[in-house]
Amino acid sequence: MQKIIGYISVIEDALKATTQKTEPSTLYEPITYTLNLGGKRIRPALLLLANNLFGGQDEDALNAALAIEVFHNFTLVHDDIMDDAPLRRGKDSVYKKWGSNVAILSGDVMLMHAMQLLNKKDHPHLHNVLTLFNTTAIEVCEGQQMDMDFETSSTVCIDDYLKMIELKTAVLLAASLKIGAVLAEASEENAKHIYEFGRNLGIAFQLMDDVLDLYGDPDKVGKRVGGDVISNKKTYLLLKAQELATGKTAKDLEFCLSSKVIDDNTKVERVTTIFNSLNIKKIAVDEMNLFYNTAISHLDSIDAPADKKQVFENFAKSLMKREN
Amino acid sequence: MQKIIGYISVIEDALKATTQKTEPSTLYEPITYTLNLGGKRIRPALLLLANNLFGGQDEDALNAALAIEVFHNFTLVHDDIMDDAPLRRGKDSVYKKWGSNVAILSGDVMLMHAMQLLNKKDHPHLHNVLTLFNTTAIEVCEGQQMDMDFETSSTVCIDDYLKMIELKTAVLLAASLKIGAVLAEASEENAKHIYEFGRNLGIAFQLMDDVLDLYGDPDKVGKRVGGDVISNKKTYLLLKAQELATGKTAKDLEFCLSSKVIDDNTKVERVTTIFNSLNIKKIAVDEMNLFYNTAISHLDSIDAPADKKQVFENFAKSLMKREN
Repeated sequence: MQKIIGYISVIEDALKATTQKTEPSTLYEPITYTLNLGGKRIRPALLLLANNLFGGQDEDALNAALAIEVFHNFTLVHDDIMDDAPLRRGKDSVYKKWGSNVAILSGDVMLMHAMQLLNKKDHPHLHNVLTLFNTTAIEVCEGQQMDMDFETSSTVCIDDYLKMIELKTAVLLAASLKIGAVLAEASEENAKHIYEFGRNLGIAFQLMDDVLDLYGDPDKVGKRVGGDVISNKKTYLLLKAQELATGKTAKDLEFCLSSKVIDDNTKVERVTTIFNSLNIKKIAVDEMNLFYNTAISHLDSIDAPADKKQVFENFAKSLMKREN
Repeated sequence: MQKIIGYISVIEDALKATTQKTEPSTLYEPITYTLNLGGKRIRPALLLLANNLFGGQDEDALNAALAIEVFHNFTLVHDDIMDDAPLRRGKDSVYKKWGSNVAILSGDVMLMHAMQLLNKKDHPHLHNVLTLFNTTAIEVCEGQQMDMDFETSSTVCIDDYLKMIELKTAVLLAASLKIGAVLAEASEENAKHIYEFGRNLGIAFQLMDDVLDLYGDPDKVGKRVGGDVISNKKTYLLLKAQELATGKTAKDLEFCLSSKVIDDNTKVERVTTIFNSLNIKKIAVDEMNLFYNTAISHLDSIDAPADKKQVFENFAKSLMKREN
């Protein structure tokens, strides 16, 4: 993991230097604020790591890594408006601090700045990298729209949900890895495998998130257990339970979701009992393992030295909080 | 003008074919709606015209022309949220029809789609075209931010105002022309002149807009005379009057701007009298002519056959509603 931590620090330093413009300050202050809010910088670090795996030069890939991070932060700035979210990483969101107009326009400029960073130098892979980036950026928006649509839809199925988390989260992780690979002139086959490693890992990670919300150790998860249940969030667990429940169980579940009478703790307790009776946790963990193992098998298929690939497997394990 | 009209029809047809995606419909319906709302399609037509001036192939430039139009429409979708505008081209704005969340995300996808169109094919000028486009896109946002800042600022001067209209309007016209030229492999000198033709013409056009709001024939202008005065909009006329007015005139002007007592018609009448006493109309028209003539002198400097350049001068004249 030492290597990833090294890259994260390179990215932190480069991010500080990337926004040189300052006027109009109403536009650029929120951008600097956002980029300095912190964050794990996982995506750009993976881009650099993938670039290094295939023998690329870090400095060529650094602008692309910054582009990915600026893009990711753009999505957060706009998502916070759409989700009416006052907080981001424990501080005021741009939306809360400056209002939605500033958040819209600063976000727009961040997206444009990401494009600028990708296009900073001319190189033979520019067209391919931009094609992948643009496609991915649009997919991320589609995922966000699906997520918003789900809130008011009563016909969401497991396949829709998996598609949504793939688009909203997994493809950007996948594209980050692939861009790093393409810039290092990796073979098409290798670039495809590293993309699939990221895509499957991203989906597995989101499924784990759903499981941990209800079944995680509250001290480790760092938030209230059952938050998704309380807010009726259409997670993998709930959708699978709705798919499997019949008769009285289905009615009980429906009651818990729609009742305005039962308190939050009772709701979490009763829904958990229903989930347990349907074996939902095991089904979700099995599904997660399927994606995780597919990710690892794509990693195995990459034609590169095993010791250089080990850091990706270690990362995958740490992301899934797996000790094994 | 026949040539421009021909290009506009090519663009209308191509725009209809450009958004093939339809799902999620909550994301793509507003995009199709926006692109079908009409509009003069001036910018993409000028891009094709500039491309043709330097012997380029229309089909290569068409994607770039569409990109410019999609980008322009993206700015309108986001501007309408920021301006709380219910109408766009006489119909419901996306913001009014679907709400701000849909307008934010659809707008984001339109911006990304513009990038996709610019990057549709690989070509030797990709890096240069993208550099110009990205710089321009950011400038347009800076112009919009300055415009919003002006609403609450009491220290706006004429130079700030000229900078704002340059960024918000003129640079996109200029970049459209230059991208057409670059794609046709025009010399750097020629590309520079056509950019400056567009930039100066764009500024002249905005100044004319300010003059016509108060001094135009209401039948021809198509809106209420003095709308800018009624809303205290910081136009060239008002800023110049504030700069020149002293003593009683300055106090009168200040009274008109801040009084909640006088009705709209009296306000327009009194402000017009003040403007006339300060010779504001002539000063504004002189400034406009300065930019217009600079535009034409850049057009004259372009090394291309005079008869092929004539259509640009005719366009400039028609844009300025000049009959001479």
